[in-house]
Amino acid sequence: MILEKIKSEGIAHLSYMVVDGNEAAVIDPRRDIEVYLDIARREGANITHVFETHRNEDYVVGSKALAQATGARVFHGQGGEVDHAEPVQEGQTFELGSARLSILETPGHTFDSISIVLADTAFSDEPVAVFTGDALFIGDVGRTDFYPDRREETAAKLYDSIFDKLLPLGDGVQLYPAHGAGSVCGSGMADREFSTLGYERRYNPMLQHGRDEFIKLKRDEHHYQPPYFRKMEELNSAAPERHALPHPKALAPGQFAKRCQDGLKVLDLRTPEAFCGAHIPGSLSMPADVAPAYIGWMVSYDDELGLVIDEPGDIDESLRALYRLGYDKVSAYLTPGMTAWEASGADYAVIPTISAARLLQRYERSEDFVLLDVRAIDEYEAGHLENATHIYLGHLPERLDELPRDKPIVTFCGSGKRAAVAASLLSQHGFENVENCLGSMSACKNLGCRIVR
Amino acid sequence: MILEKIKSEGIAHLSYMVVDGNEAAVIDPRRDIEVYLDIARREGANITHVFETHRNEDYVVGSKALAQATGARVFHGQGGEVDHAEPVQEGQTFELGSARLSILETPGHTFDSISIVLADTAFSDEPVAVFTGDALFIGDVGRTDFYPDRREETAAKLYDSIFDKLLPLGDGVQLYPAHGAGSVCGSGMADREFSTLGYERRYNPMLQHGRDEFIKLKRDEHHYQPPYFRKMEELNSAAPERHALPHPKALAPGQFAKRCQDGLKVLDLRTPEAFCGAHIPGSLSMPADVAPAYIGWMVSYDDELGLVIDEPGDIDESLRALYRLGYDKVSAYLTPGMTAWEASGADYAVIPTISAARLLQRYERSEDFVLLDVRAIDEYEAGHLENATHIYLGHLPERLDELPRDKPIVTFCGSGKRAAVAASLLSQHGFENVENCLGSMSACKNLGCRIVR
Amino acid sequence: MILEKIKSEGIAHLSYMVVDGNEAAVIDPRRDIEVYLDIARREGANITHVFETHRNEDYVVGSKALAQATGARVFHGQGGEVDHAEPVQEGQTFELGSARLSILETPGHTFDSISIVLADTAFSDEPVAVFTGDALFIGDVGRTDFYPDRREETAAKLYDSIFDKLLPLGDGVQLYPAHGAGSVCGSGMADREFSTLGYERRYNPMLQHGRDEFIKLKRDEHHYQPPYFRKMEELNSAAPERHALPHPKALAPGQFAKRCQDGLKVLDLRTPEAFCGAHIPGSLSMPADVAPAYIGWMVSYDDELGLVIDEPGDIDESLRALYRLGYDKVSAYLTPGMTAWEASGADYAVIPTISAARLLQRYERSEDFVLLDVRAIDEYEAGHLENATHIYLGHLPERLDELPRDKPIVTFCGSGKRAAVAASLLSQHGFENVENCLGSMSACKNLGCRIVR
Amino acid sequence: MILEKIKSEGIAHLSYMVVDGNEAAVIDPRRDIEVYLDIARREGANITHVFETHRNEDYVVGSKALAQATGARVFHGQGGEVDHAEPVQEGQTFELGSARLSILETPGHTFDSISIVLADTAFSDEPVAVFTGDALFIGDVGRTDFYPDRREETAAKLYDSIFDKLLPLGDGVQLYPAHGAGSVCGSGMADREFSTLGYERRYNPMLQHGRDEFIKLKRDEHHYQPPYFRKMEELNSAAPERHALPHPKALAPGQFAKRCQDGLKVLDLRTPEAFCGAHIPGSLSMPADVAPAYIGWMVSYDDELGLVIDEPGDIDESLRALYRLGYDKVSAYLTPGMTAWEASGADYAVIPTISAARLLQRYERSEDFVLLDVRAIDEYEAGHLENATHIYLGHLPERLDELPRDKPIVTFCGSGKRAAVAASLLSQHGFENVENCLGSMSACKNLGCRIVR
Repeated sequence: MILEKIKSEGIAHLSYMVVDGNEAAVIDPRRDIEVYLDIARREGANITHVFETHRNEDYVVGSKALAQATGARVFHGQGGEVDHAEPVQEGQTFELGSARLSILETPGHTFDSISIVLADTAFSDEPVAVFTGDALFIGDVGRTDFYPDRREETAAKLYDSIFDKLLPLGDGVQLYPAHGAGSVCGSGMADREFSTLGYERRYNPMLQHGRDEFIKLKRDEHHYQPPYFRKMEELNSAAPERHALPHPKALAPGQFAKRCQDGLKVLDLRTPEAFCGAHIPGSLSMPADVAPAYIGWMVSYDDELGLVIDEPGDIDESLRALYRLGYDKVSAYLTPGMTAWEASGADYAVIPTISAARLLQRYERSEDFVLLDVRAIDEYEAGHLENATHIYLGHLPERLDELPRDKPIVTFCGSGKRAAVAASLLSQHGFENVENCLGSMSACKNLGCRIVR
Repeated sequence: MILEKIKSEGIAHLSYMVVDGNEAAVIDPRRDIEVYLDIARREGANITHVFETHRNEDYVVGSKALAQATGARVFHGQGGEVDHAEPVQEGQTFELGSARLSILETPGHTFDSISIVLADTAFSDEPVAVFTGDALFIGDVGRTDFYPDRREETAAKLYDSIFDKLLPLGDGVQLYPAHGAGSVCGSGMADREFSTLGYERRYNPMLQHGRDEFIKLKRDEHHYQPPYFRKMEELNSAAPERHALPHPKALAPGQFAKRCQDGLKVLDLRTPEAFCGAHIPGSLSMPADVAPAYIGWMVSYDDELGLVIDEPGDIDESLRALYRLGYDKVSAYLTPGMTAWEASGADYAVIPTISAARLLQRYERSEDFVLLDVRAIDEYEAGHLENATHIYLGHLPERLDELPRDKPIVTFCGSGKRAAVAASLLSQHGFENVENCLGSMSACKNLGCRIVR
Repeated sequence: MILEKIKSEGIAHLSYMVVDGNEAAVIDPRRDIEVYLDIARREGANITHVFETHRNEDYVVGSKALAQATGARVFHGQGGEVDHAEPVQEGQTFELGSARLSILETPGHTFDSISIVLADTAFSDEPVAVFTGDALFIGDVGRTDFYPDRREETAAKLYDSIFDKLLPLGDGVQLYPAHGAGSVCGSGMADREFSTLGYERRYNPMLQHGRDEFIKLKRDEHHYQPPYFRKMEELNSAAPERHALPHPKALAPGQFAKRCQDGLKVLDLRTPEAFCGAHIPGSLSMPADVAPAYIGWMVSYDDELGLVIDEPGDIDESLRALYRLGYDKVSAYLTPGMTAWEASGADYAVIPTISAARLLQRYERSEDFVLLDVRAIDEYEAGHLENATHIYLGHLPERLDELPRDKPIVTFCGSGKRAAVAASLLSQHGFENVENCLGSMSACKNLGCRIVR
Repeated sequence: MILEKIKSEGIAHLSYMVVDGNEAAVIDPRRDIEVYLDIARREGANITHVFETHRNEDYVVGSKALAQATGARVFHGQGGEVDHAEPVQEGQTFELGSARLSILETPGHTFDSISIVLADTAFSDEPVAVFTGDALFIGDVGRTDFYPDRREETAAKLYDSIFDKLLPLGDGVQLYPAHGAGSVCGSGMADREFSTLGYERRYNPMLQHGRDEFIKLKRDEHHYQPPYFRKMEELNSAAPERHALPHPKALAPGQFAKRCQDGLKVLDLRTPEAFCGAHIPGSLSMPADVAPAYIGWMVSYDDELGLVIDEPGDIDESLRALYRLGYDKVSAYLTPGMTAWEASGADYAVIPTISAARLLQRYERSEDFVLLDVRAIDEYEAGHLENATHIYLGHLPERLDELPRDKPIVTFCGSGKRAAVAASLLSQHGFENVENCLGSMSACKNLGCRIVR
């Protein structure tokens, strides 16, 4: 029996494949499904079952595409209202060789959430592992904020799912959740991607509370809902057909510039340092690991997108990252890269960077500037610099009016990446005196600066 | 300017990609087009032009698929009657950066054959290379037997194309033909895949004759036309749409056996040695490098196919090979392999092998047996063993009646691969006393046996 | 924190790499260490610690080579008498970022056996996983037969190590042993490579016994000790230096044949089917997955080896497999393959294969032949065919005299692979009437034949 | 017969491998020889011959390493005084299957230069291709400036080698030189890597002159000799042994900073944009494609080097690039990257960038600044901006005193990469007001600015 974890970076999504004999099941497949087909071929197996742990809101699922490619059946918990899957309910079991997969209803994160329990019947009918979707993570639990007026109800459901359904499976059961550290689906996840129910029962901070306290904590938790979540829900209600990745045109600087004039929206996927050094005027900085949480606040699904990347060879990886988030309208990328743009004579813009050390000097000298902190509200409240102006990055596009145009603005976040996105937004909208503090809060803390709570 | 040769083994097909700046052209694309898309992405270029040197009869072209994926225009010589391409005529030119591609009409192999002349205008308008399709190969020239009643006419056309069009381009022009050694499109090709017009002019054996002699030689040349050529012509008249490779089921021995009873046609792609050691009764031996020339004589496009391969991981390569020949109905393969079949208790068949040394002993002892030589007639006539019965492998399915069922039969070819196919055919049809001479003519020659001409 | 399992097929060996921050530890590295260096580079980390769970006897360790390449320190349990490592004792801890590795002495398999306990101090000082070497496997426990006169003592030690040291770590601790199914280090291992102490405590068949019963069972267990174990012990007492894989010559048939005359020992690594179909006279069949357990009985470390493989491109994989077993004197391989040998005119040998169905017919007809069953004694005793002659494959080279030369011999094992090795041995030694039953016991069982116990 | 070109980017070096049957020859191997061994294994061949076309001065040869790994013999032209090779002279021939390699002495670039002529004796004894080393390139000829006081003599020798030895081989002979566009060994090379003697005879600009004019042109040509050429000559006189790539430590920011204080020389291999955005104070910008020509002017072979790269996964490629230039003392790299440095609170430096458009505005406004043009003298003389100060980048370290410290300096080159190196040098040496014109001359030209000659 083979169990393989397939990680999609960026969205920090974990899907799984269980193979026994010549049958295979996939749990929560991503949209670019070749990886599953490749494993199946390597193992000489057919993908016969696909399970969705819930209707995902943070990436596009590949269930229908995988079913089309393989003839597999797709299963989804009750109440999920998805067109492409058969509903399953608690207790249903599926056999693949000596692997037995059983359904456990574990609502809370969503009402349709299920977990899939794995037994190796060659040894026992008791479980050896469980796939928990977004119910229980390593070091954290799922979000319960998707039904704002039913937060206590969903938190209670989640508690009961974990304590009455999952943990009773036994300490010795391995835990395979749908996300790892870096996901927008939770902020407390461990960067360790292996654990057991027993370890979580004892050391997962969220499981150390009583039921009432848990509900209260979850009720009061703050989460942002990137606007693209709606699009994902919509897409995942029917799941998209199988089709190829977008095939953007490779455009030389002059051609690319022309498309920009015609409304192409330029996303710059390079590092913040490179973006700050030189970028196409009007482009939006969108480093790969920032995109999942923030692109949905700033880029419409209707926009025609043009990409700036380091090397033409990176285009495939970049397309996949966007594709998994449902961004299919990528129609161009700059070739052979930013250097060609500069050499073409076209103008480029710069965002000055300022180190934490120099920033603190300005504080000491009481210079007049706006420190724009774009982190999440709970990060901000946990500690920020004096006189910082807080606007969450996702809200910045709609709150630009609150910022002065006659003062220097220094963008600021955890380490400088989100600050780069913020700086690019300000620059797009005509703010002329913007600097980006690469290093940001992390650097300030390491320098021992004064922190306000 | 980048020129990349893409070789498809088995059919020994050579396609080419020319890239300059952000534009690329593909000459004679194969059907599984990812390789071209990958190169384009690596180079940050768009495929804008696709050229077909003629309507191919030995593999399925990927022109339409490539056009669908990239928006490229497809070009084909006049008289080709293909639906998916724009006709081009002598003298038309296409510019990609400093690469200039010009059309030269070079009929003979077919009436619509064109060559594409490449110039690097950064240096000169004169040609630096030429893509000759099936007109001129390295060490050989194209076949002229496709219009049996116009053989002299086509041979004359080919001579004129080579001597009046191609060679006058100049000795210093590099030659890029559509096939290399091993192709069914010619038997004299060098195993060296680089040459120039100057080298061919002087050392290509076929170019050392006068016009009349050339025509006579070509007129009298013997070629077989695998029946699948007709299917290829038909497919390539419109070129197939882009679609994914077949996705056969991985079947365990019991499941596979059941499908065999239901009419699945089993192709065994393993080595002749492994096939002879043990194979599924009724299966057809079809080693990868034998398939292009012979599968078309034995396997209908309507057959549902089941494959036997060494490792499940080999399935992709096997599917591609068949896919390029238009065989899309591959519905199953045996997993995890032949060993599983044997272990299932299902019966298997064996073809005894006999070395050349032992074969010659039988000759010495004047034993009574049929030596069935299945090589091409010209190979046979160039030298064969005494008393050999000659039936060309392609014709064997229709000429089985000519063979005795009461005598031992030893199958024989150049090295033992085609002989394995022949032995599997005989075995399929109930011949019970069949042996395969692995080594065959090559081994006999090396042993210095008596050869009859 | 990253934990990566590195599997070496054939020897079914599992090594592990733990990375946190820019530090990494490797547990039980194999000899070809590039895989660890590659992971370290990918993660931007240095390998600083190498742990040996015990002095391995079934493969060559890469500890010293890894230390030479990286400057890492190597650690080994007390009493291990290895020159290249620092001794560690129970309770010692090592920190890599938030990963804490602690030593647990778990003797039994060997006296120097240690387990390494992993904690993620970002969550707890309690363990999250344990690397158990050859003490505790998934579905089985380690061998305790290496000190024949102290079998009860070692079995008792192993019991105590498991029940007093390992299991008390807690049900929720993940288990990472040094071997998976297919290893010579145990026959009951699950083909599932993930488990926990809790799952093993409840469902590992060997852990369901009381202490006395466990000791008795282990004392009476039968194991073979391949002679190469001694060589491994010797090599691993100092661990070999880092050096490149052997670089055998690619020899054409004539050259290869000449080397054979000069004493080259030919190993044929192709499938049993291919070997039976045709092989170099005198060569030894040694399929990749059979080699670890059996090569040591038949091939001296002093022999110059020549390989027969399917494709030249397979040579690297083949060399690695032998290299991990300490076979460095690979001086040649046949190129381009067996077909070339056949075509050269050189003679080749054949082993007729016989299916289980046909074998059973012979039984029915009471034909006179020797059924040579070469399985392990416990396999044999668990069920065999009537009148089978049992000689364990490892012992066959020394017991050839017991077999008649005037009767047909059918070699027989579990599925036909070891039988092929046996047949090749018999053939080497002049037995002329040898057949191999591909399918063997597995096929007979599936056909419902009469089984004797 | 297989001929494979192996390209090493950066140094734009082309080596070649000729395989026929089971024998292979390598021409001008690079130092990291795995690529040749891999091809040999793929083809089932042994590398038996290694040819050096001359004693290379721009990269470290892998001849001895390859000989050690394979047992191949190494050959070098007379007068080369290399210890690891056998001298060869005009007319010597070597046979590999049907490939015949013959020596042609073609001095000029160096006195020991040879070309290797390839014939396919299956077709003719006449040449089909020639490996010309640094004698004749595609679009250019070799440098003749290595013996400053014998420039006319070497130029004459080169002319005679080309016109009396190479071109007479025939127009239809393919040309395989040792370098492509981007090499420091010539500035006029085509970016097209295929050509013939016939094409070069007619269209290579350097071959369109009479002997006297050719000599005069070559005599007056200006070339720089990077100081590392001496080191290469020294290394290549004996050729280094085979050994592994350097294995630098992956250091976190704090550790890296400490090593910097202890004298680690920091090379920043990221893009100029990223370097300008943020870099470690005191580090030297060294983009991959700039390094071969310039690193030798600025970095001593005795320096301990520390690298800054984009991703830890890039380290292998970076190490190879330096290793080929003989830089083995790479002892550290920053992990996981520049962002970690920024987040550590350590200070970082910035180089403001200025576009050509903004630069020209300064010209219009007659602002006071130094435009430091660091291109080669012939580039400068072919056209530069008004009032530019010219110092060749290679000479800058020794001519820093000529620059004012009280004026703004804008660094300038062809496209901005060398300017980034220059800016980093100035910054290292305390110049405080330095800007880098990304785009530089290329952008200025495209903007139609005034150019002075």
